Amino acid sequence: MAHSVADLPSGPLDLYRKKASFNWKDMLCFIEGEENVAFKQHVFKTLENDPVFARRPGEDISLEKMRELAFLRVKQLFRYDFLTKDEAMANPVKTLLLNDCLGMYDWATSAKFFLHKGMFGATVANSGSRRHDKYVDGAADMTLFGCFALTELSHGSNTRGLRTTATYDPSTQEFVINSPDFEAAKFWVGNLGKTATHAVVFAQLYTPDKACHGLHSFVVPIRDPKTLLALPGVLVGDMGKKLGQNALDNGFALFHNVRIPRENLLNRTGDVAPNGSYITPFKDPNKRFGASLGALSGGRVSITRMALVNLKLALVIAIRFSATRRQFGPKDTEELPVLEYQLQQWRLIPYLAAAYALEQFTKSTFMNFVEFQIGQVMRDKSDRQAELGKEIHAIGCSSKPMGSWTAQRGIQECREACGGHGYLAMNRLGDLRNDNDPNCTYEGDNNVLLQQTSNYLLSLLAAKLHGGERIESPLHTVDFMDDFKSILQSKFSATTMEQCMNSSVPLAAYKWLVCFLLEESQKRLDQQRASGKDEFEARNNSQVYYCRSLAIAYIEHMCLQRFHDLTMDQDTPAGVRPVLSKLCALHGLWSLSGHMATLYQGNYMSGRKPAELVQMAILTLCSQLKDDAVALVDVFAPTDFILNSPIGKADGQLYKNLWSTVMQGDDVLQRPSWWKEFCADKPVVGSLSSKL
Amino acid sequence: MAHSVADLPSGPLDLYRKKASFNWKDMLCFIEGEENVAFKQHVFKTLENDPVFARRPGEDISLEKMRELAFLRVKQLFRYDFLTKDEAMANPVKTLLLNDCLGMYDWATSAKFFLHKGMFGATVANSGSRRHDKYVDGAADMTLFGCFALTELSHGSNTRGLRTTATYDPSTQEFVINSPDFEAAKFWVGNLGKTATHAVVFAQLYTPDKACHGLHSFVVPIRDPKTLLALPGVLVGDMGKKLGQNALDNGFALFHNVRIPRENLLNRTGDVAPNGSYITPFKDPNKRFGASLGALSGGRVSITRMALVNLKLALVIAIRFSATRRQFGPKDTEELPVLEYQLQQWRLIPYLAAAYALEQFTKSTFMNFVEFQIGQVMRDKSDRQAELGKEIHAIGCSSKPMGSWTAQRGIQECREACGGHGYLAMNRLGDLRNDNDPNCTYEGDNNVLLQQTSNYLLSLLAAKLHGGERIESPLHTVDFMDDFKSILQSKFSATTMEQCMNSSVPLAAYKWLVCFLLEESQKRLDQQRASGKDEFEARNNSQVYYCRSLAIAYIEHMCLQRFHDLTMDQDTPAGVRPVLSKLCALHGLWSLSGHMATLYQGNYMSGRKPAELVQMAILTLCSQLKDDAVALVDVFAPTDFILNSPIGKADGQLYKNLWSTVMQGDDVLQRPSWWKEFCADKPVVGSLSSKL
Repeated sequence: MAHSVADLPSGPLDLYRKKASFNWKDMLCFIEGEENVAFKQHVFKTLENDPVFARRPGEDISLEKMRELAFLRVKQLFRYDFLTKDEAMANPVKTLLLNDCLGMYDWATSAKFFLHKGMFGATVANSGSRRHDKYVDGAADMTLFGCFALTELSHGSNTRGLRTTATYDPSTQEFVINSPDFEAAKFWVGNLGKTATHAVVFAQLYTPDKACHGLHSFVVPIRDPKTLLALPGVLVGDMGKKLGQNALDNGFALFHNVRIPRENLLNRTGDVAPNGSYITPFKDPNKRFGASLGALSGGRVSITRMALVNLKLALVIAIRFSATRRQFGPKDTEELPVLEYQLQQWRLIPYLAAAYALEQFTKSTFMNFVEFQIGQVMRDKSDRQAELGKEIHAIGCSSKPMGSWTAQRGIQECREACGGHGYLAMNRLGDLRNDNDPNCTYEGDNNVLLQQTSNYLLSLLAAKLHGGERIESPLHTVDFMDDFKSILQSKFSATTMEQCMNSSVPLAAYKWLVCFLLEESQKRLDQQRASGKDEFEARNNSQVYYCRSLAIAYIEHMCLQRFHDLTMDQDTPAGVRPVLSKLCALHGLWSLSGHMATLYQGNYMSGRKPAELVQMAILTLCSQLKDDAVALVDVFAPTDFILNSPIGKADGQLYKNLWSTVMQGDDVLQRPSWWKEFCADKPVVGSLSSKL
Repeated sequence: MAHSVADLPSGPLDLYRKKASFNWKDMLCFIEGEENVAFKQHVFKTLENDPVFARRPGEDISLEKMRELAFLRVKQLFRYDFLTKDEAMANPVKTLLLNDCLGMYDWATSAKFFLHKGMFGATVANSGSRRHDKYVDGAADMTLFGCFALTELSHGSNTRGLRTTATYDPSTQEFVINSPDFEAAKFWVGNLGKTATHAVVFAQLYTPDKACHGLHSFVVPIRDPKTLLALPGVLVGDMGKKLGQNALDNGFALFHNVRIPRENLLNRTGDVAPNGSYITPFKDPNKRFGASLGALSGGRVSITRMALVNLKLALVIAIRFSATRRQFGPKDTEELPVLEYQLQQWRLIPYLAAAYALEQFTKSTFMNFVEFQIGQVMRDKSDRQAELGKEIHAIGCSSKPMGSWTAQRGIQECREACGGHGYLAMNRLGDLRNDNDPNCTYEGDNNVLLQQTSNYLLSLLAAKLHGGERIESPLHTVDFMDDFKSILQSKFSATTMEQCMNSSVPLAAYKWLVCFLLEESQKRLDQQRASGKDEFEARNNSQVYYCRSLAIAYIEHMCLQRFHDLTMDQDTPAGVRPVLSKLCALHGLWSLSGHMATLYQGNYMSGRKPAELVQMAILTLCSQLKDDAVALVDVFAPTDFILNSPIGKADGQLYKNLWSTVMQGDDVLQRPSWWKEFCADKPVVGSLSSKL
């Protein structure tokens, strides 16, 4: 395997590469597997060799141009067809890796492609039936272009409050799609701004008997595929500039009694007969609602991965920069790489450890989700499948916050750690931050989502306390909580820094922490109810410091547990195990240090020693890992073309790369086109001043 | 006074405005003073009424165009001459307020103006002598355009490592300015990219005897003011796109033996006689170095203020949004403003409290700096003036990190708290974040600067321990530390939540915290030295958890102390004192909660109660302040034109404002210019696919 991976160019980074404690190609092979490494390299090289994907770091292009380029690139992706359906079925992780690769190139281009293929194409296929094959086929060969329209101007988190209506008219056997007012305009829909010809629109379904059957999805034609002009009754447009991902055209649409055929209802979870009677396989409307939103569940698992990819790219840039940027030193003549400073290590290396932890976490949860989805396709009606669904939901709702926030903070730290050069657009840290940012928001605001996870955990506790049921779940992420009473008796027991440098120490602390927050949250809720608050208010008033912290601690524990298990696994090669063990211990201690006050508050820790041991262990691990840091990011790094950051290039020629990119800028040495404004029409100071 | 401030438009925000516990006009009058409120309104209205300053929220314009607009606007500012030198002398705070006003409009435009007037013009005036009057005059009437060139491509933080040289040639009585290689190119210089005709260039001064006299500043002509073309020997250009502040043209310059007259040396701190001998009023070259960089000191105080302004604007937007955005509710029909939720309050209101604390802090430190500067101008050689200089330096080096990071985090929280709408460029939270970001970096990387503050504090402790000197300073920010031994005996003593809701509780805790970290840092340093580390290494290895935390705790204490004093001051009107007291208590508790682990670690707190009391007090204060939140941001808010954010408008017509701005976008409803790319040349799926 190691032979098929090209060596990295020699240069200033050799200093650290030679000091690495492990072989980066072995690590790459272990993490990705040979076939997948080759697949990724194939995608990277294909994009690099195709002028359609050519670009320049930090280029200044208009929204209109960005969107045109993205569209041309998406077309080209159809021609490359990197992953056929059969290949994806045979090796599902390739779907994830293809998204990684395209996202590393540009998230908006990737989103444009996947919103069409996945959110539109797959939703129609999964939520519809044979009668919708023409849309599925049209999406597959791009005779149409799709989007997914759920959110409205005045409703996002509260999807039940959506107000677009679909009223069935039996006289013509059509649905009439209508937006009652502009506040109910579909809003934020990716691809809708300029390109979509068809949308999956969520609307409240009304039958002729005036009954509302709740949210359903419909295929609604938006633009004429021959002209890209809006169809009658559809007011559709572009929302304009966003903080990032601007190659994607997010849009809005208002429907003025737009008529669509009855058959355009995606009818897996409910249908309307020609005469207007409503038919559903579900008895419980709540279950139907859940199922109709089920298509969204995989998104959060993917978003966690997307956030990780952003963090990885930022770390590649910041670590390579820190290994080659020299500033100050013990003597006047000799300056040290900034990576040698304790402070710089402490700012960056914990995020590197987090990235390795999240690598294992996101891949394994993706496979859990694949397992769940296979069950769904197979129409598995077992209790296990139902429980698995709940557990995956709880994982997705907390993993997205954990991943997106870790990336958000990590990228910001990388930006600052690269100083001014990190603020230069060409070095890409800004784009990474801006493109990562919506991961905190779409598919559910992070803070709102965390409530879903804590609700799940609290319901397990309630079932135990009131029904005597064991706390357990198909993926075993909650099983330890069944012992919560004995776990709550445990104490921090390490007495030396060396003991602390083992991931079992933070892991044990996390088990205590989850149990403590579980019990405290339950108490807080009970207090609120006892004081006469209704359920809505009781929940709302138990979020901060309780339920929210519980959900975060739960998912951090799970992430640490999976990484810990990997380092203990006999199949993990001996050559990479020591460095993984250090990363795991560092990640555990560092994420735990965000909860130190709670650990003291609940008396899991007491006295000066524990916090000091944790702190010293973190600093020691950072210092031990600094010589491995460059090799650790080499494992993550895409090709230079994909990374697109002069200060992050593999050859480590920091200033040469930066300088030559600056010099290749547009009109870099030219005087401005408006130079006469300086030379003529000089202002007369105070000529326009007026008294107050 | 209250009569001269216009009422705000009635609308959905009335709900909260009516519930406010205080009169927002009284607060405005108290904070700003009548004259200053009128001055700010005059600037706001002038810009709004002038088409040169017209703009549209979220508009998409090219770098070239942004820079042209900024230049035209700067010219216009000369014509308005809002603040004459005499007016600024009579009421120095107006300088600060003018910067506030222009920054609220756009930081890059403001920077372009102040870099020319302040950094170039004032530096020449303060560092030069009568012989430089022509440059000062040229800057004043814009016959030339200036910039300030310190940083080089490979040197930022370590200014002593700068490599540009100025070698005196007595045969022609000229200095030869030279960049040894591109790594020594001046880099990041604001205004240099496209517009500067003259630069203050920092270079190592060499006399004919080959002696290097260290860094000095020189006026170097860059471009011909008649043509804006670069002068011979100067390679000058534009660095391209940045993460923000793109209306400012940051640039680079390489000097190939450029000759300038001897007189262009700014000679306040050192001069070269025609024959080439070096003359300096300083004996100690270190002191001269300090003095030549002295011009930079005011910058950090200003940056802290700039960060605060960004935070204020973000809060205006996020709080008004939260008061009008409704989502979920106890019943199906009635949705609550999101500001009613505990979680949303906890996300935003502590930042509102921080903004009020920083308001008092930044204004008072600005006045301290003015006092110091007057001493400098008066050539005050007293010990007090010297000590004041050191204290101001320590304050500036820690206030910039405190301010810029608080704003950075606060703006990000505001962005996320506004959900998707916060991600729309037109709502401005992205620009605020991007424009605030460099505050963490320029005029010294935050983490590097904090070392200056801890060095100052540790030197005071050392003088006490070894020389028996009192710990005290002209502004008394360190005086309490003289009692560190008895303070370290104190414990957290509040036993009820009500007691905690008083700012004296976190204030006492901060005094303990600073003393604890001071002593611990000293111990850590001593340990490092005892283990054989040299001073450089010992310092580096004592930053994380020690010196860095010490500097942060010191400045947070000072900020809290000043706010606390304000709430206790008999001159603070009774009508606003209760709400200020709550804000002060909340700010103290909330910023203290970031140090909880240390408080437990050092046994200032123990057991479950203290952390719980602090947490409950924070939540209670947030909940008590939520009805005041809208009025509290009304005090900060500039006019709608200046704020430039549809979701933040004073009328609170959230969706109407958002919708109408979207509909006014460029080509919002048009099909894209490249529509034929969709309709023709359809991709053949897989036509370009190749086997691996």
